[in-house]
Amino acid sequence: MYLGKVVGTLVATHKEPSLDGLKFLVLKQLDAEGEETGAYRVAADAVGAGLGEVVLYATGSAARQTVLTHERPCDGVVMAIVDQVEINGELTYNKAEVG
Amino acid sequence: MYLGKVVGTLVATHKEPSLDGLKFLVLKQLDAEGEETGAYRVAADAVGAGLGEVVLYATGSAARQTVLTHERPCDGVVMAIVDQVEINGELTYNKAEVG
Amino acid sequence: MYLGKVVGTLVATHKEPSLDGLKFLVLKQLDAEGEETGAYRVAADAVGAGLGEVVLYATGSAARQTVLTHERPCDGVVMAIVDQVEINGELTYNKAEVG
Amino acid sequence: MYLGKVVGTLVATHKEPSLDGLKFLVLKQLDAEGEETGAYRVAADAVGAGLGEVVLYATGSAARQTVLTHERPCDGVVMAIVDQVEINGELTYNKAEVG
Amino acid sequence: MYLGKVVGTLVATHKEPSLDGLKFLVLKQLDAEGEETGAYRVAADAVGAGLGEVVLYATGSAARQTVLTHERPCDGVVMAIVDQVEINGELTYNKAEVG
Repeated sequence: MYLGKVVGTLVATHKEPSLDGLKFLVLKQLDAEGEETGAYRVAADAVGAGLGEVVLYATGSAARQTVLTHERPCDGVVMAIVDQVEINGELTYNKAEVG
Repeated sequence: MYLGKVVGTLVATHKEPSLDGLKFLVLKQLDAEGEETGAYRVAADAVGAGLGEVVLYATGSAARQTVLTHERPCDGVVMAIVDQVEINGELTYNKAEVG
Repeated sequence: MYLGKVVGTLVATHKEPSLDGLKFLVLKQLDAEGEETGAYRVAADAVGAGLGEVVLYATGSAARQTVLTHERPCDGVVMAIVDQVEINGELTYNKAEVG
Repeated sequence: MYLGKVVGTLVATHKEPSLDGLKFLVLKQLDAEGEETGAYRVAADAVGAGLGEVVLYATGSAARQTVLTHERPCDGVVMAIVDQVEINGELTYNKAEVG
Repeated sequence: MYLGKVVGTLVATHKEPSLDGLKFLVLKQLDAEGEETGAYRVAADAVGAGLGEVVLYATGSAARQTVLTHERPCDGVVMAIVDQVEINGELTYNKAEVG
């Protein structure tokens, strides 16, 4: 999994029918220290994440292991909203302080 | 999933039989802001996308989770035509204005 | 899928038994315009492609969705020989003219 | 698989229910010589690895082939704690000397 | 699949139980011409490859399609020892001459 920041959303009315009801989020990938890496991903939202939140997302076939995404053509899913990241004993991200 | 722009098509008459009937599109990958990243992908078309359209495509095993591509040797599929992308509250792509 | 050019072959007599009978091709990856990207791949041949031919290859689990490669430890397969590539309305590759 | 060093942990209370009970580790990828490559990964912990330990981690669908991660939306797993790495006959990592 | 050179081995006593009995090799990735690319991989050994040998390895779910690695959390496998590589009609690697 990678850390990501929710930066946007995407609307697509003309799509593979099995995708109906999925919400797509645009994520900027973050590195372990919380800086943007330059990579991004569009992922289905399995947890109701909001704009600006730091999330954990899985890619590949893992992205279909949620009730929402099962057997859908989906290769990225937001599966957790991150509360805290601690690197080498130091709290590098704390949602309570940011939000 | 990634954003892509349909830039071309591909004809292949001599192929694995299970691929018969699939239409292959050449996609340039776009970043979250809609700029080309330099990466590309050939993907099966599950939604009838046209040249120049901005689409959402999935790769890996997700690409076989459509009726068209099920159990075929296909690792990329266009599964939605994008109407709008909104990044940090700003509309960065709007199909209605472009098309 | 990606476009590739068949540049070589590979012989391996000591191998996992399930690979018997597979022919392995060495491919140079091409970009959408037909230029080599610097990447390469060894792939099983499902279509009888020859040296110098431009092909379409799939990677990952897709590479096992052919009769030849089913349930074999294979992560790349040549599944089509490309006849024509058309980018933005221009024919950028035409096998009839090359071969 | 890749070598990694456990550098941190991550707390996420709001998540896909199937992830309950999984511990997530932040890993810095190491190269064959034990130097950080700059890449990282968040992975589920299947072996009880501790901060600073050198581990082996698998990604993709392999990450769901443990009792802990089976059928969960998880694309990275720490599946071994490394004792020794020997490159070209030289011991380049020895847990007994480090720890 | 990619070409690789076996450069080392790895010992891990504390690991996911299903990995018992697997031998892990450290591979340096080679390009089509046999030069190291800078990338590496740890892979399970399905063919008894030795230090210095040029091998073919598969990654992703393909790595579990051998008797040894079936349903184990393994994302890389050495599935063949390479005898010869021929690029554009020229023998670029010949095990008989090297070994």
